[in-house]
Amino acid sequence: MSAAPFTRIAVIGLGLLGGSVALAARARMAGVIVTGYDADAAVRARAAQIGLADTIAATPAQAVADADLVVFCVPVGAMAAAAAAVAPYLPAGCVVSDVGSSKASVLKALGDALPHATIVPAHPVAGTEQSGPDAGFATLFAGRWCILTPPDGADATAVARVAAFWEGLGARVEMMDAAHHDLVLAVTSHLPHLIAYTIVGTASDLEEVTQSEVIKYSAGGFRDFTRIAASDPTMWRDVFLHNRDAVLTMLQVFTEDLTELQKAIRKGDGAALFDHFTRTRAIRRSIIAMGQDDARPDFGRDHGAVATPSTPD
Amino acid sequence: MSAAPFTRIAVIGLGLLGGSVALAARARMAGVIVTGYDADAAVRARAAQIGLADTIAATPAQAVADADLVVFCVPVGAMAAAAAAVAPYLPAGCVVSDVGSSKASVLKALGDALPHATIVPAHPVAGTEQSGPDAGFATLFAGRWCILTPPDGADATAVARVAAFWEGLGARVEMMDAAHHDLVLAVTSHLPHLIAYTIVGTASDLEEVTQSEVIKYSAGGFRDFTRIAASDPTMWRDVFLHNRDAVLTMLQVFTEDLTELQKAIRKGDGAALFDHFTRTRAIRRSIIAMGQDDARPDFGRDHGAVATPSTPD
Repeated sequence: MSAAPFTRIAVIGLGLLGGSVALAARARMAGVIVTGYDADAAVRARAAQIGLADTIAATPAQAVADADLVVFCVPVGAMAAAAAAVAPYLPAGCVVSDVGSSKASVLKALGDALPHATIVPAHPVAGTEQSGPDAGFATLFAGRWCILTPPDGADATAVARVAAFWEGLGARVEMMDAAHHDLVLAVTSHLPHLIAYTIVGTASDLEEVTQSEVIKYSAGGFRDFTRIAASDPTMWRDVFLHNRDAVLTMLQVFTEDLTELQKAIRKGDGAALFDHFTRTRAIRRSIIAMGQDDARPDFGRDHGAVATPSTPD
Repeated sequence: MSAAPFTRIAVIGLGLLGGSVALAARARMAGVIVTGYDADAAVRARAAQIGLADTIAATPAQAVADADLVVFCVPVGAMAAAAAAVAPYLPAGCVVSDVGSSKASVLKALGDALPHATIVPAHPVAGTEQSGPDAGFATLFAGRWCILTPPDGADATAVARVAAFWEGLGARVEMMDAAHHDLVLAVTSHLPHLIAYTIVGTASDLEEVTQSEVIKYSAGGFRDFTRIAASDPTMWRDVFLHNRDAVLTMLQVFTEDLTELQKAIRKGDGAALFDHFTRTRAIRRSIIAMGQDDARPDFGRDHGAVATPSTPD
């Protein structure tokens, strides 16, 4: 452990991300005290029970009382309310950050609610399909990228401290303009989620193919999409509402490309299909080479010890 | 091991599927002799080197000389040629099967080339994104479904023996009409692959976002799609050409559903998005309950031991 850039950290929102931030900070940063808070009393109770933080505060005021860093870990649509709730109690000099998936909207929400605070928005590109206080774990950020989107004229020292904080949690830090972040993540995260949610819905609603058949034969590819489409509905509703323009832009390009492949299938143009399918192989090799995914086939799924199905249907 | 339904098995095509059939039969069926053949001399040489089969035949004639089962494990567009190559040498009474992903087209191809053979088409719903003779493994079919699509009037004994063969390899067997199979797999396998290939292509070709950014921030969801889009281009070109109508039908439904979600985003209809995203969670729970996917978050990717990236970029 090295000297921590902050010593009194308040984590607002104790789901997958907030829980992981709290656990990682406690595991990896010497001398840091983590206080957690969640607007949901049941989540606070559970967080206390499983020891997510050193203290679970009962109110926003208690949560931030002596914090030198406040990290908002709530859905991007809840940032404004969460920030407003702590606004009257925020200590002078306290740095504010977050983990939201859209950055232009979050910067505006936090800035409006906390006009005097030093705000350094952050987005750790990490997660699982699970949510809630039991979903977090201390190694979620290990080897993942965390994108900081400090506004023009941001305090350089505060930016450096927030960067050091995320590096302390195991992440690699990159700086980016908020608008560009929103475009990049629209294609690497938001559009994939939208498409996964769509196809899982499509498959569930068919008349010609039963849901039981979809489930049984999902190993042909479909099951991969169901993981992403099991992500938190509130979080993702907010992402699409708050990064609307970038998502719609990327969706337009995707639709054009899909129409082109549809035409190749309809016309029986095997050469066009083969050419496209060959190009897309290279990207996966690069992702694995960059340490951003598991190199083992089929995500390393264990083909030797398959779970017994719960029904013999 | 139990008594094998066939004792002399010829596997034609030694890629991921053929290699896995050969390895599984040798590992799990007492007294079975497996002969392998591939039209590609380099694949035959590699298969001999790594011992995929008891014998690697040098010609189609040698491959099927004394077989009581021939399993065609070539791309569906190559079925006709592979069957024609063995047609003059096929022993009387030999049963013919395959592993193709589209069944109506394969039944026709095999039936045309082998008009006197007993044909029981099969489709094991199993695979990885890897291909070639080194990709196969003996447990690929364990716990997976294998769909048999025997034509009307098929010999019941031959169907039962082919079913027993696949059960012997570890699969669970289901019977289905070929046309219905093609519709079911269009939604559980072919459409997911088409969409994955599309979005990976979209992300690679953007002007506003670099390929390096797409790779770096792929953990936000995109990387899941790259696995499927790394699948064998020849195999998938053939699937789309040979199951064209069913794929285009399902693609039409998907496009309608995507347009609906696009409209909800454009209009800011959070309730519609939330409702859709909530429904899609249930399907994943069922898939896990049925033993068709890994229950661990993020496919069980190891967050504690992330690979070191090859460049510090």
